[in-house]
Amino acid sequence: MTYCVAITLKAGMVFASDSRTNAGVDHVSSYRKMRVFSKDGDRVIVILSSGNLSITQSAINLIAEDPREPGAKRTLYDARSMYEVAEMVGHALREVRTRDAPYLEQSNISAGASFVVGGQIAGGPPRLFHVYSEGNFIESTAETTYFQIGESKYGKPVIDRVVTPETSLLEATKCVLVSFDSTMRSNISVGLPIDLLMYRADTLRVTFQHQINESDAYFNMVHQRWGEGLRKVFTELPNPDWNVGFEQ
Amino acid sequence: MTYCVAITLKAGMVFASDSRTNAGVDHVSSYRKMRVFSKDGDRVIVILSSGNLSITQSAINLIAEDPREPGAKRTLYDARSMYEVAEMVGHALREVRTRDAPYLEQSNISAGASFVVGGQIAGGPPRLFHVYSEGNFIESTAETTYFQIGESKYGKPVIDRVVTPETSLLEATKCVLVSFDSTMRSNISVGLPIDLLMYRADTLRVTFQHQINESDAYFNMVHQRWGEGLRKVFTELPNPDWNVGFEQ
Repeated sequence: MTYCVAITLKAGMVFASDSRTNAGVDHVSSYRKMRVFSKDGDRVIVILSSGNLSITQSAINLIAEDPREPGAKRTLYDARSMYEVAEMVGHALREVRTRDAPYLEQSNISAGASFVVGGQIAGGPPRLFHVYSEGNFIESTAETTYFQIGESKYGKPVIDRVVTPETSLLEATKCVLVSFDSTMRSNISVGLPIDLLMYRADTLRVTFQHQINESDAYFNMVHQRWGEGLRKVFTELPNPDWNVGFEQ
Repeated sequence: MTYCVAITLKAGMVFASDSRTNAGVDHVSSYRKMRVFSKDGDRVIVILSSGNLSITQSAINLIAEDPREPGAKRTLYDARSMYEVAEMVGHALREVRTRDAPYLEQSNISAGASFVVGGQIAGGPPRLFHVYSEGNFIESTAETTYFQIGESKYGKPVIDRVVTPETSLLEATKCVLVSFDSTMRSNISVGLPIDLLMYRADTLRVTFQHQINESDAYFNMVHQRWGEGLRKVFTELPNPDWNVGFEQ
């Protein structure tokens, strides 16, 4: 299973993804689900992926530059806008699924895959897209400032409660980590390390990248204090005052 | 959509269900998803249902006593143990699905349905079961003290964090309401009123039943103070102290 989230703010963008890949019961390993394509001053493109790993890897390969064959094909570095990037990702996904899905389906293996695609290209604004398994996509809005893919529900309430377009990058990063903490607590198949990336709007370079593993002091502090804080808020809520007919 | 939860504790059991039924886009109405079968001093049986309403209603009808034809069939009042109750529910579900599912599938309508079944019958302990769509079922344990059906994920983290077998009935009820609050905040298709039932172990009568609607003062207080409390805990968490290369 996977959990990825990306938030777009006035200040910029925050991206995060877990690294747990589970192919069958006893084949659990780590693969990065965040791919970054950047050229300082020109573009920062971040792609988060969820679903069948062979499908998402192949789709990205179709549009990633191959250093052994530079210029041999049209890549994400050729896209003129983030909209075009989302189109390219959707198109690549369709191509791979058309090629592979019929064979996967013969073995009842899902070829489902989806992406969150965000970033900025010189001359355009920062934009964030959610590319669905069918290759179509939607863009974030002022009302819906974030996208999640994978195991999204456990970590959704906290984002809904605290993030607005005015939230700062660091505050949003904190929220993303709380969201991961809730997800990992309720679903053991989402696991560390977490890949994290912050992008400040209009800088056209990656602002900060960080991988959070078991020994990360900040994440462990968030985990502990969020849990304690929730239990404290819960304890301080009074019990129901209905006349229930028995002493508690 | 639906959200139902039942928790079993040393002190007894708490059951809760929402009442939103959505059959098609513009046909939203309220149906109770909690059915209670009780005879003071003999048994208390509570059944929460999720899924296709025609399937769950029919299945329960097969094993509920019809006052117009008392004694005409074997009902939940004839079951000798809670295990037998779970068996009867699973069997009834299979019977209805065998009858109806092929026709529903012709219109691509899901015949999926599941139940949480709990209570106590004189001579036995309180027991709680989850009856799956296929009619098989599992029982709660000391490690897994609760079952949810329907839209379960948003409201799961808070239960995981605070409920243990030693939790009191009122504390567990409070937790259930916080769990509903999180669910309704993130999924508009789960709606009030909430049917709530508390059962004190070994009393063999319904302890307390309550329907929570929009004007319920306690639920509104929980909603407000939980939201405020979460935001406060979040605000008090320090931001990441990594050297991110910019001032916040």
